Amino acid sequence: MSWHAADRTSYSQRVNDVAGLATLLGDRLVTHPDVLRQHGTDESYHAPQPPDAVAYPQTIDEIAVIVSECARSATPIIPFGAGTSLEGHVAASRGGVCIDLSRMNRVLEVRPDDMDADVQPGVTKNQLNAALRDHGLFFPVDPGSDATIGGMAATRASGTTTVRYGTIRENVLSMRVVLADGRIIRPSSRARKSAAGYDLTHLFIGSEGTLGIIGELTVRVVGVPEAIAAARCMFPSVEAAVRSVMETIQIGIPVTRIELLDEVQIDAVNRYSGRDYPVAPTLFYEFHGSERGVAENAESASGIAADNGGSSFDWATGQKEGAKLWDARHDAYYAALAVRPGSRGFATDVCVPISRLAECIVATQEDLRASGLVAPIVGHVGDGNFHLIFCVSEDAGELARVEALNDRLVRRALAMGGTCTGEHGVGYGKARYMREEHGDAMDVMAAIKRALDPAGILNPGKILYPFRPNK
Amino acid sequence: MSWHAADRTSYSQRVNDVAGLATLLGDRLVTHPDVLRQHGTDESYHAPQPPDAVAYPQTIDEIAVIVSECARSATPIIPFGAGTSLEGHVAASRGGVCIDLSRMNRVLEVRPDDMDADVQPGVTKNQLNAALRDHGLFFPVDPGSDATIGGMAATRASGTTTVRYGTIRENVLSMRVVLADGRIIRPSSRARKSAAGYDLTHLFIGSEGTLGIIGELTVRVVGVPEAIAAARCMFPSVEAAVRSVMETIQIGIPVTRIELLDEVQIDAVNRYSGRDYPVAPTLFYEFHGSERGVAENAESASGIAADNGGSSFDWATGQKEGAKLWDARHDAYYAALAVRPGSRGFATDVCVPISRLAECIVATQEDLRASGLVAPIVGHVGDGNFHLIFCVSEDAGELARVEALNDRLVRRALAMGGTCTGEHGVGYGKARYMREEHGDAMDVMAAIKRALDPAGILNPGKILYPFRPNK
Repeated sequence: MSWHAADRTSYSQRVNDVAGLATLLGDRLVTHPDVLRQHGTDESYHAPQPPDAVAYPQTIDEIAVIVSECARSATPIIPFGAGTSLEGHVAASRGGVCIDLSRMNRVLEVRPDDMDADVQPGVTKNQLNAALRDHGLFFPVDPGSDATIGGMAATRASGTTTVRYGTIRENVLSMRVVLADGRIIRPSSRARKSAAGYDLTHLFIGSEGTLGIIGELTVRVVGVPEAIAAARCMFPSVEAAVRSVMETIQIGIPVTRIELLDEVQIDAVNRYSGRDYPVAPTLFYEFHGSERGVAENAESASGIAADNGGSSFDWATGQKEGAKLWDARHDAYYAALAVRPGSRGFATDVCVPISRLAECIVATQEDLRASGLVAPIVGHVGDGNFHLIFCVSEDAGELARVEALNDRLVRRALAMGGTCTGEHGVGYGKARYMREEHGDAMDVMAAIKRALDPAGILNPGKILYPFRPNK
Repeated sequence: MSWHAADRTSYSQRVNDVAGLATLLGDRLVTHPDVLRQHGTDESYHAPQPPDAVAYPQTIDEIAVIVSECARSATPIIPFGAGTSLEGHVAASRGGVCIDLSRMNRVLEVRPDDMDADVQPGVTKNQLNAALRDHGLFFPVDPGSDATIGGMAATRASGTTTVRYGTIRENVLSMRVVLADGRIIRPSSRARKSAAGYDLTHLFIGSEGTLGIIGELTVRVVGVPEAIAAARCMFPSVEAAVRSVMETIQIGIPVTRIELLDEVQIDAVNRYSGRDYPVAPTLFYEFHGSERGVAENAESASGIAADNGGSSFDWATGQKEGAKLWDARHDAYYAALAVRPGSRGFATDVCVPISRLAECIVATQEDLRASGLVAPIVGHVGDGNFHLIFCVSEDAGELARVEALNDRLVRRALAMGGTCTGEHGVGYGKARYMREEHGDAMDVMAAIKRALDPAGILNPGKILYPFRPNK
């Protein structure tokens, strides 16, 4: 193996070396500059890094052929789903071929008896839910954007419903993966549990395309609940809100969603979504279950909120009102950006043990006030996870201040026993914190990377940066 | 590296090479034949294979020193918890040093606010629950024996409560692991979720001591529910019982336990535990929640059972009655053995998608009738997982027939999209099925093994058998 991190020109050359791809894919191998630019860009502030070509496979076997072809010339491969990642995961840091999986978007089979479904990796969350609706089922993982299921698995995504249904990790039963040499494996069956050998499925989940390309998935699905109730509750402080969340979870109330929006975010929502919510730290709740169960759980949660100085629950009655409430939460990112028209979003997230969460959020708010930067905070507080959405102008000095504050945030989370990212992933944006968070465990990650991808062609420059392939 | 699978004598020699261990451990390095025999034996029918010495570390740093010392002379290392494994996990197939973790049995810290606890690996399930009781908490993973938490993690154990709380996999947040070269890593923080890099924690879970020695764990704990209700219900057939389970789960009734005992097992329980349960396929249920929630859920489940021809629920009212009901379930293994005094237990388990479960159990019962062998069946049916407990005499011919039937069972489960073991693990007993189940994914497991343990000293002969270390 002799592939090195050299200048980009050599990779453009390399694409010529994989001329076999054009023969295979015809007009499904694209090199138009607009398409390249789009595929080097995600929803983050990270600088776009376009690939040299974009391939659109239609089957897992085609992915395997593309990978084999690229392996022959040690050409980098970058998988691409919906392009909604936030840490530069899709950047072609070293050029190469982007594998766009959006045309592999078929829901292959839904099995209501087994409460699972087979999907191609390019199926999006909303698309899967549309296919499940008639079966009375839904897919319970709910990130902020309409990501692909393959992308969610690759980045270990989660979202608002994790506190009840778990992250994507708990909701993928099985997958088929294309390895760096083009072989296809199925690392686990779709049995609900297994003690048969190493848990490779969970190793691929969150590996961000650096160990293999996910070409098919079997996911868990759950029944649409009989009743759903949603409510909003204001608190005198972040501490009071977080204390309510902790107590709600401790006594075992099966809340489906419990989300914090800080006063800055509430103000942004009011402006963007035309609401008139009181500007205070606010929890959004959702309960799933039977009519009676939901009512009882909501009553208990409401009692806990009141004990912590919360307002009375403002109910969103009916499905439409509930959806409207949650639309406000889902639009948080765009609302945040609208606070400062023309700004770009710089989203970051950390996750800490919940006992440290209020302290971490409050210290971050103090940092923000001291810096004069604007960044609404939203949190999946049941998990100890929260996000900042910085609204950054083109001013380079401002970006540097944002990065400095992000740096303090990550180091604070690590010092509290947390992680540098709860759900956005590492990409190249957070690769610099990996050694600090994981210590010598990084050597194990690098050893696994070398074992599975000795030439370093799979999404180079991500997670293990500055990973160096074998000489 | 030059360690080969040679004859055992050379390993006895090797123990002399690690004479430094005796200096370090004093009388905590034991070579008495009785102790060696006990440590080469688990609760299965697999032939005992004693190690050459047993080391009793008291701290993770001592584990690291033992491993470093063994690594120097390429001496095999076999971790040992409570010795309750069922597939020969503790067998010293190639001699070496057994690391008995039973003296590392301290509950280090319980954090009610974070709903987690730090434990040493030798803490047992019952011991942890005793330490949690005063906090109103419990550890929700419930295998059949009082295993150690380290052993449960190493073998990816689960048990009766998986349908509600998940397996050990969903309940370990973090761990400290001693690698094959003696380094100690912490592969994840104790944040509830993280998207920061490869999921090494889940790679070590279920790796059966072949990738590292788990020296400390942070586990999730949950609140003791306000109310618990337990019930028993007879069905006209296995199919009717399984259909009830599927429907109960599909409509989202949060049942905590739902266990099937077939007619043979019920008969065994009646004899062993002095009950007079009607001899028919029977489901044992348990519900956790609020008083009202439990009553509502039980009522719904009871309605589903009735629709499928089930008897009316026989309630175990009160905690004592409930415990008595579940004692009968927990004693299933010993009850099964008592059916045929003097016999040894040969326990096996498989797991299939639940839509195939009834078919798999019924075909297995037919196999049993045709063979004349005795083996009660118990199942964690909510997971699609069931066990056979063969009662085997000393007759070698009978053991061969049992193995043949087990073989058919495993192949049937694999053909149905299932796994050769839902929760007992691979050890060496099921290593022969790994290639059949995983195909080329076995090459990935072997590559990871080589990357993390190039000399092959960590629990050799398990999972990857016939794994060959690097020359």
